[in-house]
Order: sequence, then C-alpha cells, then structure tokens
Amino acid sequence: MMEQRTIKVDHELKELCTHGTAAFPMTVNHDDLLCFQGSCMACHWHEDIEIIVVRRGTVRYQIYQQSLVLTKGQALLVNSNVPHSAVPVDNSHVLLCTIIIQPEFLYGFPGSDMERKYFRPFCGNSRIPCILLEGKDEEGQEKLELLRRVETYFQERPFGFELKIQSLLLDFFFRIFSDNQEKVGRGTAADGEKLRRLQILLDYLHAHYGETVSLQDLAAQVHLGRESCSRFFKEMTGKTITRYLEDYRIGQSLPLLLAGNLTVAQIAELTGFSSASRYARAFRERMGGNPKEYLLHKS
Amino acid sequence: MMEQRTIKVDHELKELCTHGTAAFPMTVNHDDLLCFQGSCMACHWHEDIEIIVVRRGTVRYQIYQQSLVLTKGQALLVNSNVPHSAVPVDNSHVLLCTIIIQPEFLYGFPGSDMERKYFRPFCGNSRIPCILLEGKDEEGQEKLELLRRVETYFQERPFGFELKIQSLLLDFFFRIFSDNQEKVGRGTAADGEKLRRLQILLDYLHAHYGETVSLQDLAAQVHLGRESCSRFFKEMTGKTITRYLEDYRIGQSLPLLLAGNLTVAQIAELTGFSSASRYARAFRERMGGNPKEYLLHKS
Repeated sequence: MMEQRTIKVDHELKELCTHGTAAFPMTVNHDDLLCFQGSCMACHWHEDIEIIVVRRGTVRYQIYQQSLVLTKGQALLVNSNVPHSAVPVDNSHVLLCTIIIQPEFLYGFPGSDMERKYFRPFCGNSRIPCILLEGKDEEGQEKLELLRRVETYFQERPFGFELKIQSLLLDFFFRIFSDNQEKVGRGTAADGEKLRRLQILLDYLHAHYGETVSLQDLAAQVHLGRESCSRFFKEMTGKTITRYLEDYRIGQSLPLLLAGNLTVAQIAELTGFSSASRYARAFRERMGGNPKEYLLHKS
Repeated sequence: MMEQRTIKVDHELKELCTHGTAAFPMTVNHDDLLCFQGSCMACHWHEDIEIIVVRRGTVRYQIYQQSLVLTKGQALLVNSNVPHSAVPVDNSHVLLCTIIIQPEFLYGFPGSDMERKYFRPFCGNSRIPCILLEGKDEEGQEKLELLRRVETYFQERPFGFELKIQSLLLDFFFRIFSDNQEKVGRGTAADGEKLRRLQILLDYLHAHYGETVSLQDLAAQVHLGRESCSRFFKEMTGKTITRYLEDYRIGQSLPLLLAGNLTVAQIAELTGFSSASRYARAFRERMGGNPKEYLLHKS
C-alpha cells in the first residue's frame, strides 16, 4: 500500500514544514498526487512563493475563485499567502515538480533595493495571486526553460549549484516582474484579516466534519450572516461550503476504509454522512468508483 | 585642465569611498586613467571584489609580484584585500569599466550555504589573488559577455535591473568557482598580518617622501632587517621600495607643477628628490617628457 501524505498545517492552515533550510532557503520537491490523502492537495497557504511545474497528467488548481487547468509542461506561480488546492483531472496520474522559495533567498535582506522595489510590492499582492506559465511564445518557453534548469541543478548538485539556482531564479523573477510591471508598481497588500477569517472557518469544518454542520453556527464563528459567509467562503476557496465539506469528509474516510476494520456504513457515520448511500454517491463522484472498487484497486 | 582624481584611502590604504549603497551593494564605474593623479592608479586594496574590464588601451596591473598586461576586451578579477595598482602601457589612453561588488551582495547573509561553501574560502584566498579573463575560448567569451551585460543593465536600468545584475554576477561567479574548484575547496585565508605590515610601510613612505628615506628606519617600523624588508615589499607590491618611492614622489609633484607658482628645483626639493636633474630624469622616465613639456601638454 502506498504511503499516504498529508500536508501538515498549523491552526492557521499554514504549512508547518519549512521549505529549504535557513542556510539555503529554497527547495525543489517532486510530488505524486496519488501519494496525498484523497489524491489531492488540500487548501493551504504559506509565505513562500511556490512554482508548480506539471511533469505528467492534468491537474486543476483552485486559487480563490479561479480554477486553472494545467497540463504537462505548464507551470503556475502561486504568490505568498495565497490559499491553493489541487486535484487531478479525469483521474490522471499527476506528477508535479514544485519549486518553493522563501523570498529572502532572492532579495537578500529586508530593506535592500530588491526587497523594497520588487518583492515587497509583489509578495502577497492581491492583484497577482498567481501567474500561469503556458509557454505559448518564445519568452514563455524561456521562462519554463529557466525552471527546468533550476530542477536539474537541484538534482545534480554540481559544485556551486546554489549560485546557479539563485541566478536562474533571479532571471526568472526579473522576467515575471517586467511582465507585471504595472501591477507590481502599485500593489495592494494581501488581506491578512480575510486569511484569518478563512482559517477560522476551515478550523471549524475540520473539527466538526463528523457531525452535521450548521451554516448558522459556522457563520457565527466569523460574525457573518449565512449568505455573507457562503459568499466569502466561495470567494476565498472557489468551492461552496457543502462541496468543500464533502471533499474533506471523503478524504478523511480513505484511511478508515484502508484500515479495513470498519463497515462502509460505520465509516459514513464517522465522517459525517447522513447515510451509507450518500457516502457512496459522494465517493463515486470523486473517486470514479464505489468504496469496494477503490479497496480492490488499492490492495 | 582635467580634474585630477586620487583614490581616497585611510591610514590602512583601504579605500574610503564605499562601493554601491547599503541597499544595493555593487557599482559599475567608468574610469579614464588620464584622470588619475600621475595617470595611474596607486597601490590600494579593499574588501570588495573588483572586476576590471579594459575598454580602451593597454594597461599593466601589478598584483603582488605578478605583472599582468591587459588589452582592450580583456578583464581581471581582483580578489578581496589584494593590493593592486595600474599604469598605462606605452602612454596609451586607458579606459576601464570596473565592477565593484561587496561580496554580501552575492552570498546574501553570513552563514548562508553560499557564503560558507564558496565565498568564505574564495574571498581573500591567497592562492587566488586575481584571475585573468582573456576570452580565448568559448567559455571565456561567455564570462566576458556576462560582464558586458552587467555593464549594460547598470547603465540602462530597466525595471528590475538589480535582479538581472545579480543573476548575471551569480552566473559569472558560478563559472569562476567551477574553474577554481580545487583552490576554493582548500583555501588559505588572506594574511592580515602581512597587509597590516605593508600598510605601515606605505604609511611611512607617504609621510616621509619629502625627505631622504632610510631603509633602516623604514625596516625598523615593521621590525624587519633591511633585506627582509626589501624582499617583503617587493613580494607584496611587485615594486622595489626605491621604485615605489620615486613613482609616489612624481605623483605628488604633479599638482605642484600644475599650480605654477613653484620652480622645478623647488618642487624637486619638496618631493624629496636630491636634485632638479634627478627629478627631471625620473619624470621623463615615467611621463615621457620633461616637466615643462608636460605643462605645455596639459594647459
């Protein structure tokens, strides 16, 4: 059986694992979405800038209300503190290369010209939550080529590779900032209050998914009316609350299913479904088969 | 009349002007050697790494005992804390582009992987005082091309130029470190004691050039015998003490000559020459004409 991965997050859903080391604050990961619980990457955010390059399959990223479908060879830059989640499209086997960078790695030190002029207005700028890199033209191809070379130097680690990686990433961001000069020029900071509120809602859902969740109780957590709360949740995650909760319940049910000592009806009850048939229907919708077929496939 | 430039140095001969700013700690200068006092750059050193690209003429750099002749298109990297001086060859009109970099600009912060693994063993490494870049092969041409692009971005300053310059320089140093992997791998630190001793000798010469300087008195400053002192001075500057002192005296005489209110004999005496004819001879050797011809040429 494959090891299931979850992204460890703190009570704010910020990722707990740091990316890279203090002495070399960036890293390159290779992720197989099949290894994540529920074969998808749950909604999370972090201060690091993340650049995802799709190496295989087709994946849908959700950035606020924007849904982006990426196929092999395309890339997505996710800005600091932008909630993002990912699911495979059409059950495709998705392999991702993710380059995760603490912005200090690029700008050197707070107060440097590079920090003040470019990274401070860019990082978390709400007008640039993400940038799709499709490689449609020569300049686009060059940017993707820079990312490919970062990946290669990180894997092969020749003498001095850290310098080369920083050089390639600075060239990459030089091009990104040039393309977005106007937006970087007059940015508005990310809304910390909104992120805090989203975190409260997600915390509540994760604590109560095993029960019936009342929209009224949920909305009360953030002092909003039911409609405002629904609208806000959709704005920030791109999903309705119902959809998010069902996705989360299915994700939580998988380890119970694989453990093999509970019936489907028991699992449905533990994960907050009102009946075994509702669980089976939600399961089929997401996993392309019923729980038993899933178990056969996994074993 | 041209403005005469001297390099301002403190009592340790370290340059007093900082290169670049704290927020962007590198700069690119364009120097005309004719604008320097005596048309040459006096012996000095600094912690910044300096990369000189010859844009016109032929120039001789003196790095310790090594004498390097550079012509148009060639470049020289001078390591941290390495005493260097420059004179034009055959009275040629020398134009230099110098890229001066505080190493922190490249390695980010003390303790970073890049500082520990590469810059700490490289900066001031006595086995690599300087590196000549001749562009004899494709890889050499590429390094010179990187420097040319640094110069262009510094002059034209498009949006994001700081990132591009850092990217280019990191690529340049990646290649330099790869070429010198073995030396960087097991470097020996620059000898601070030697630099301190050289500074004492130069201070003494600069304070007493107007008088007859006794080798015994000079050597006593650094607690060396006369022979050891002479050998040490030559080792560090590539010049004999006599030669250095005459060069310095000629340099000091130029502003007096140009001021026009002293006779050649008076100037010779003020700058420590034992006679007007000795002054004239030393002058002709260096300046390619006698003092009067020099004045005619300058006015």
